Amino acid sequence: METIITHIIEYAGTFAFAISGIRLASIKQFDLFGAFIVGFTVAVGGGTVRDILLGQTPFWLFQPSYLVCTIGALIFVILFRRYLSLFENAILVFDTIGLGFFTLVGIEKTLRLDYPLWVCVIMGMITGAVGGIARDVLTNEVPIVFQKEIYALACVFGGLFFCVLYKLGAPGMVLQIGTSAAVIIARLIAIRFHIGLPILR
Amino acid sequence: METIITHIIEYAGTFAFAISGIRLASIKQFDLFGAFIVGFTVAVGGGTVRDILLGQTPFWLFQPSYLVCTIGALIFVILFRRYLSLFENAILVFDTIGLGFFTLVGIEKTLRLDYPLWVCVIMGMITGAVGGIARDVLTNEVPIVFQKEIYALACVFGGLFFCVLYKLGAPGMVLQIGTSAAVIIARLIAIRFHIGLPILR
Amino acid sequence: METIITHIIEYAGTFAFAISGIRLASIKQFDLFGAFIVGFTVAVGGGTVRDILLGQTPFWLFQPSYLVCTIGALIFVILFRRYLSLFENAILVFDTIGLGFFTLVGIEKTLRLDYPLWVCVIMGMITGAVGGIARDVLTNEVPIVFQKEIYALACVFGGLFFCVLYKLGAPGMVLQIGTSAAVIIARLIAIRFHIGLPILR
Repeated sequence: METIITHIIEYAGTFAFAISGIRLASIKQFDLFGAFIVGFTVAVGGGTVRDILLGQTPFWLFQPSYLVCTIGALIFVILFRRYLSLFENAILVFDTIGLGFFTLVGIEKTLRLDYPLWVCVIMGMITGAVGGIARDVLTNEVPIVFQKEIYALACVFGGLFFCVLYKLGAPGMVLQIGTSAAVIIARLIAIRFHIGLPILR
Repeated sequence: METIITHIIEYAGTFAFAISGIRLASIKQFDLFGAFIVGFTVAVGGGTVRDILLGQTPFWLFQPSYLVCTIGALIFVILFRRYLSLFENAILVFDTIGLGFFTLVGIEKTLRLDYPLWVCVIMGMITGAVGGIARDVLTNEVPIVFQKEIYALACVFGGLFFCVLYKLGAPGMVLQIGTSAAVIIARLIAIRFHIGLPILR
Repeated sequence: METIITHIIEYAGTFAFAISGIRLASIKQFDLFGAFIVGFTVAVGGGTVRDILLGQTPFWLFQPSYLVCTIGALIFVILFRRYLSLFENAILVFDTIGLGFFTLVGIEKTLRLDYPLWVCVIMGMITGAVGGIARDVLTNEVPIVFQKEIYALACVFGGLFFCVLYKLGAPGMVLQIGTSAAVIIARLIAIRFHIGLPILR
């Protein structure tokens, strides 16, 4: 049961991440295959960079489900492109849940490899935020993550919350739900109230 | 004999890939060393990303021939820069043969590491197409691979053809020539008839 | 004593590299956290790419000092942003010393892994110059390293000087000071006399 819920969350997040890549690629007049590649990069980019930094085989090489999920996202965008704005809120919710989930996955994987907590926090952030940065680099845009509402910092916030819970000896379930929730809530508040960080001048 | 032909194809492809980087760097007013680095990135970038994803030491660290090939390409462009348009077709042929060859090399290396066939197809595409994407990122251009005639998809087409031949139990030579030829023919047809994929809007 | 001096040089260089990222990020209107990430990328990007190419765990995962150094650089820029021009020369000197030091570190690490000398020269250059390239890619600029005064080539010059000293059997101290000095002097002369490489057309 728990595994099923985990998988649903994972694929919903992958789907939403892929859509954000496919949409930006469409705006930049990429062809279908280009849009697919950008979508896949957003979906698996963060976890791939994490795995390479940690000396692990990239997670998506073990099963084709991430690829299938991205193909699904592409088909979805093709079919419903005129009505995407109706799904705007659903996609945003998926995207945010994905951010929380991926951050947690990154933290837990790093901890299992016996790295110190500060490395876990960084890897959580990389898992959550690097896909979006790669998307903007590939489409020749300034990464929006660096300029708009709090995004990568929400991952760091969740990571620090994980550290506190972990030090307090919280059980696995509490750690997982608490960390994901911290990322998601931080991100939703930032979006709702347009909270960004100050800009240096 | 077979090895000699393989090497000639490999170096001709490396040479053509490097030239595409050096030329774009020149258009963007890069200095000689910048042009060299971009050329080298195109020549070895795809295979390097493949090797890092597969946990292997990048192929070009084992012998300096790829470096030498790129230096040769730089000297060639310096000497013949006024007459490069005369070589346009030859360079395009080399580039296309290189694309077919590199795709094959990527597929075979991945298969030798016991990855499933769908990973081989992806790694073949990465080997062939990522160098050109890296070139465009380094020169601050939108990757042309995503917009113009079929390019990365030709690698995928070759990869799928490889899978069919492999499943049919085709002998090594047939696999190798068939796969490379599938990529080359797909690419040449796409160029000749300006075949691109549809663009999402 | 020697270790202390080494650490001071290393952190001064890291600090200066981080500042170059933070400043460019500010110009591009990045928020504080975005500026931090770009600064960190410049500080550790070159060594990270080197370590991944060599199959090593990235150096900065072993201790948080590089992270701390980047946080220090961010605080420094926030506090003294109105007076940064007064520190211009000091930062430039730190940056150049850092370039020489990082190049040396990259060469020595590669040599210790038993790679041939030509790979050491390349890894020295990657360690010194890739951080600046990553900075420009992340901020959507054409990499300045490829266009202005000699920069990456100064690392190559230092690397070749290392090879000569090494072949002559120079003791460790001479190798280290000689190589760093070669990079620093080449770079300072290039800045002072605006020496750039010719541009292909």
